Amino acid sequence: MSREKVTVLGLGQMGSALAEAFLAAGHPTTVWNRTPAKAEAAAARGARRAGTVAEAVEASGLVVVCVLDYAAVRELLDPVAGLLAGRTLVNVTSGSPEQARETAAWAAGPGARYLDGGIMTTPPGVGSPASMFLYSGTPEAFAAHRDTLAVLGDPIDLGEDAGLASLYDTGLLGLMWSVFGGWLHATALAGADGVAARAFTPVAVRWLSTVGLFMERYAGQIDEGRYPGDDATIDVQLAAVEHLLHAGRARGVDGRLPELHRELMAKAVADGHGGDSYGRLIEAFRPAD
Amino acid sequence: MSREKVTVLGLGQMGSALAEAFLAAGHPTTVWNRTPAKAEAAAARGARRAGTVAEAVEASGLVVVCVLDYAAVRELLDPVAGLLAGRTLVNVTSGSPEQARETAAWAAGPGARYLDGGIMTTPPGVGSPASMFLYSGTPEAFAAHRDTLAVLGDPIDLGEDAGLASLYDTGLLGLMWSVFGGWLHATALAGADGVAARAFTPVAVRWLSTVGLFMERYAGQIDEGRYPGDDATIDVQLAAVEHLLHAGRARGVDGRLPELHRELMAKAVADGHGGDSYGRLIEAFRPAD
Repeated sequence: MSREKVTVLGLGQMGSALAEAFLAAGHPTTVWNRTPAKAEAAAARGARRAGTVAEAVEASGLVVVCVLDYAAVRELLDPVAGLLAGRTLVNVTSGSPEQARETAAWAAGPGARYLDGGIMTTPPGVGSPASMFLYSGTPEAFAAHRDTLAVLGDPIDLGEDAGLASLYDTGLLGLMWSVFGGWLHATALAGADGVAARAFTPVAVRWLSTVGLFMERYAGQIDEGRYPGDDATIDVQLAAVEHLLHAGRARGVDGRLPELHRELMAKAVADGHGGDSYGRLIEAFRPAD
Repeated sequence: MSREKVTVLGLGQMGSALAEAFLAAGHPTTVWNRTPAKAEAAAARGARRAGTVAEAVEASGLVVVCVLDYAAVRELLDPVAGLLAGRTLVNVTSGSPEQARETAAWAAGPGARYLDGGIMTTPPGVGSPASMFLYSGTPEAFAAHRDTLAVLGDPIDLGEDAGLASLYDTGLLGLMWSVFGGWLHATALAGADGVAARAFTPVAVRWLSTVGLFMERYAGQIDEGRYPGDDATIDVQLAAVEHLLHAGRARGVDGRLPELHRELMAKAVADGHGGDSYGRLIEAFRPAD
């Protein structure tokens, strides 16, 4: 079985991991980096080193770019834009949804197919099917290269708005920091009573699955704009957050995070939504009308 | 096979769900509630209704109490304390770790075995092996009644400090609110660009598994007091949170939650820990020395 040819532009930590995953899966891989020395490791594993960006682009129908920022993407590719005609450009450089949409429009000019990508793992996680790779942009591009992209991690198609991979990416990082914050607060609380982080954490990780079930239920409520508090009301949660704050104060644990949760809940109760589910709090985050 | 006799004191929504799960599993179940009418549903499913608390306690070797608060537990059981000798009292009433420890000491007086419990689900989740039931207290009590308690949900033994079930419970609720907050923020962000909550949420739920892997890695770092930022440093996360704040501002999404994360990260960077992993932020939550 003949594997699709791929090109990787940019061999920082992440770009190198991408090239390595393609090579490990048997894809003929061409690499290019501004500092040629960084291409040596990939070359040692069988990558072909291109002397110029033009040569790198011409080598493959699928061109993956992973550089510092979107300005660097354009600086690199503007001079060779014409060569992108008929190829697929997959841009996994970090940037904003707006930059992704601009770049999609720019790539359409010379007739390139464009996918913007969000890599939801660190370099060591590249190549694992457990790692999520988010893509948005030209639908035919995703369909055509899905199998090749799957060697990097599980490819998730977010549709044709090229900005969505970046928007999901940044939102998911925000979710991660919130999970970390809640977990660190709880770990500090348990730690104050002598519980090791390694003892508490497996229970916390398992609990995330239960929390995920609530998120799925509330997601439906959010889309429908109705928040029945059948199983757990904001009133009940507001009472429970007081226990958390009390336990934290008694142990000298920093309370800024649970205080913010209490503030959000108390506002919803004051607005007359105490009998609703936690899903109602989407209104605390949404733009004001 | 003969099933262990159990007694359930208190038939609110949760107590009723507990009695129902015991009955469904074939346990001879005695129930008591201050308002006798609430015992009718359980009786219709085969429960024996006790006329007094004393009669209820004497009916079984395993007595589960689920009432409003710890004051109600003591009010109920103080008059019949002597009858608890040689029995196991499982208290799943909500309260603080300190109340749990007090109640454990009180139960030891007449020679009862005591388990404090934290129920990590809503009443409809009782009876599912996916639901976590946390227990702490007399180790022999957990060992002796593990199989019976397993009909309520997966029983997790936190050891002999009776306060830990409550401490884990409140910490896990705090984690839940943080997960909800991060998810609602991200859902509002994606929603501003036309993404349905039902489209975004499955990706967010799946992402929680990846975040859990980081938590497990950082838990080891926390216990060891060393936070190598091999794969993702606070410096890098601080740069990324600016993207999140920018995307939120551009869409009018409330930024209080990510601003708090930024504040925690910026403090760690200012303290010279920018090259460390996020696990270092445990210090932001821990009591000051």
